Amino acid sequence: MSYPLHLLKLIEVLKKLPGVGKKSAERFAFELLSWESYELNEAADVLRDIPKQLVCCSDCGCLGSIDSCAYCSNPNRFSGKMCLVASPRDVFFFEETGEYKGLYHVLGHLLSPIEGINPSDLNLGKLIRRIEAHQIEEVIIAIDSTLEGDATSLYIKQELQRLPNPPKITRLAFGLPMGSSLDYVDGSTLAHALQARNHF
Amino acid sequence: MSYPLHLLKLIEVLKKLPGVGKKSAERFAFELLSWESYELNEAADVLRDIPKQLVCCSDCGCLGSIDSCAYCSNPNRFSGKMCLVASPRDVFFFEETGEYKGLYHVLGHLLSPIEGINPSDLNLGKLIRRIEAHQIEEVIIAIDSTLEGDATSLYIKQELQRLPNPPKITRLAFGLPMGSSLDYVDGSTLAHALQARNHF
Repeated sequence: MSYPLHLLKLIEVLKKLPGVGKKSAERFAFELLSWESYELNEAADVLRDIPKQLVCCSDCGCLGSIDSCAYCSNPNRFSGKMCLVASPRDVFFFEETGEYKGLYHVLGHLLSPIEGINPSDLNLGKLIRRIEAHQIEEVIIAIDSTLEGDATSLYIKQELQRLPNPPKITRLAFGLPMGSSLDYVDGSTLAHALQARNHF
Repeated sequence: MSYPLHLLKLIEVLKKLPGVGKKSAERFAFELLSWESYELNEAADVLRDIPKQLVCCSDCGCLGSIDSCAYCSNPNRFSGKMCLVASPRDVFFFEETGEYKGLYHVLGHLLSPIEGINPSDLNLGKLIRRIEAHQIEEVIIAIDSTLEGDATSLYIKQELQRLPNPPKITRLAFGLPMGSSLDYVDGSTLAHALQARNHF
């Protein structure tokens, strides 16, 4: 005798979460069995309302509660800077630092021939229109240093440099994490930190 | 600027799952944002239907799809043996072994003065009625060897021994896990395995 059908369905749903395998999904499922009806209904409502409540700005791609974006519609953000990130989640990491007060542009994808994501999927036309509309002087590329991230960054840099009036293009610094110990830093990061050493 | 309200709600719901902290809940939440509406609705329906679809047998406490239990209503299970487990999930572990063909009895709680779970919460009256009704000859205590598990096991043993016609009471063997190496076995398990050594 195996699990009841509905329990199997529940486990299948939970297994779709990132990093959740069969064992964790079972553990979550049995925990959910102990929830009260009102808690389950509340959770169901929250899930069902995601597409209605959480929309990405059609302009910059940032996540917000309403379609008028907290960034695009805020004149204090028009500082001539635009931070280019891969996903809506990345925006919150920058906001948490409290260091950045410019605009954002969410790409949504990185170039990946394996997954069939080509330059046309990056929708650079929209990026360029926004750069011109907001008189952006600096585009900060804030994309991970992975194979896809590096390829995407380089491609965008080349495209932006072709503009008649190209903005300054910068990329986040790579180096040692603050408070880290050399013992635990990988060779590639250390080599980068050495190359990019600063006058002290 | 922090997360939108609905995202915070979603994160709060996900944080209620066992072993899921803020970081994992955020990761799950952003994954859920990428799900299609139909997937979210399906997940919401599965959650909402848990109380309707997954019911515990009012007699033995085992989980099933309908109130007529796959164990209590199966005459092949009336072998005079009853396995006493803490939670409905434990039943599936025994079923997976394919070794056990008797009845089950799910306690639902273990004695825990800190959590306010007293002997009366164990509902031993029901257990005793079932032992008598099914003419149980052996009660197999299959409860973890934790502080609460040991206290509960001992208490139940004492109560069952007071019956006019007490069943045989056994407990699962403790010892080395199959295929394990002595290197990785804790001292308490090893001491137990030594005490309970068998003629070979």
